[in-house]
Amino acid sequence: MSKLLTDLIEALRCLPGVGGKSAQRMAFHLLERDRERGQRLAQVLEQAMREIGNCSRCRNFSETPVCNLCSSSSRDRQVLCVVESPTELAAIEQATGYRGQYFVLLGRLSPLDGLGPEELGLDRLAERLGEGEIEEMIIATNPTVEGEATAHYLAQLARAANVRPTRLAHGVPLGGELEYVDRGTLAHAFGSRQSLD
Amino acid sequence: MSKLLTDLIEALRCLPGVGGKSAQRMAFHLLERDRERGQRLAQVLEQAMREIGNCSRCRNFSETPVCNLCSSSSRDRQVLCVVESPTELAAIEQATGYRGQYFVLLGRLSPLDGLGPEELGLDRLAERLGEGEIEEMIIATNPTVEGEATAHYLAQLARAANVRPTRLAHGVPLGGELEYVDRGTLAHAFGSRQSLD
Repeated sequence: MSKLLTDLIEALRCLPGVGGKSAQRMAFHLLERDRERGQRLAQVLEQAMREIGNCSRCRNFSETPVCNLCSSSSRDRQVLCVVESPTELAAIEQATGYRGQYFVLLGRLSPLDGLGPEELGLDRLAERLGEGEIEEMIIATNPTVEGEATAHYLAQLARAANVRPTRLAHGVPLGGELEYVDRGTLAHAFGSRQSLD
Repeated sequence: MSKLLTDLIEALRCLPGVGGKSAQRMAFHLLERDRERGQRLAQVLEQAMREIGNCSRCRNFSETPVCNLCSSSSRDRQVLCVVESPTELAAIEQATGYRGQYFVLLGRLSPLDGLGPEELGLDRLAERLGEGEIEEMIIATNPTVEGEATAHYLAQLARAANVRPTRLAHGVPLGGELEYVDRGTLAHAFGSRQSLD
């Protein structure tokens, strides 16, 4: 195989979920059938890697200093949703009708990995909470040990600024069968059962 | 989501087997964790799409006028293996110990799609057969209707140049169970049974 083709196959393996076999299939597909879109991908990818930074206000990915969401006048400025990463922001945007603003931690509190309040931009978050505009802070960190610890810290931060902290509901997923729900979730859902009246 | 990020996700969908969800995962992964390799991919991809052409001798992908395989002095010049596409050439190279040369049709005879002998470079193949160096032509087209028709045509071409045509063996795949082998293959394997003495 030619040097350049080998390099291309190797480079494609940086994509998550793409091993040697898929990378080869991708390379051959582009070369045989879709050079134009391959060129376009190369160009957009280069530009994205170079230009996409983080919004100075919410830390979400953005190629402008302030992102669309933060500069939009149609988003509710009284509610702020805190997420760990842009992936989770995208998931919430796609699944819910949420119309407030966001703050992206770009991580979770994890002292062992060197991720403290400063790395997560919590000083900037505290500043924003202090501006007095925000009334509710929705904490949407992941339900992992570190995510929960982060949530705890965030709740204190909100209370200190007189902002009401809320947390995503935990419980049995819709469409799931009780039999297959993990014990921890089931116990939590049982303990947090809600009155139907 | 920012315009550039949306563009990147859309562009990634040109890869085979990548839908909207995977494309989004890939884009976020590269931006969050692997910008350097993303940059490298962009650069190699651009170069590959622009520079990789076809070898003037065997029509395989190559960024040089004549590919490594054709210019190699360690490959047997008496045997020529004809395949439909570079993918199949790669599969044969990776699976077998074949040390001869190749010719890539870049398609199969398919008059309805406008693919005739000329598009498959059969004039060039005939020329090569006429040079007198080749003794055996291994026909490794796919075992589809069109592939078989192409094989038939190629065999005639070889015979006309006094080259012995051979064909990949058809039969039950190794490790397969007879119960699950399709009828056509089983009937063929049965009819072509070989003596063990």
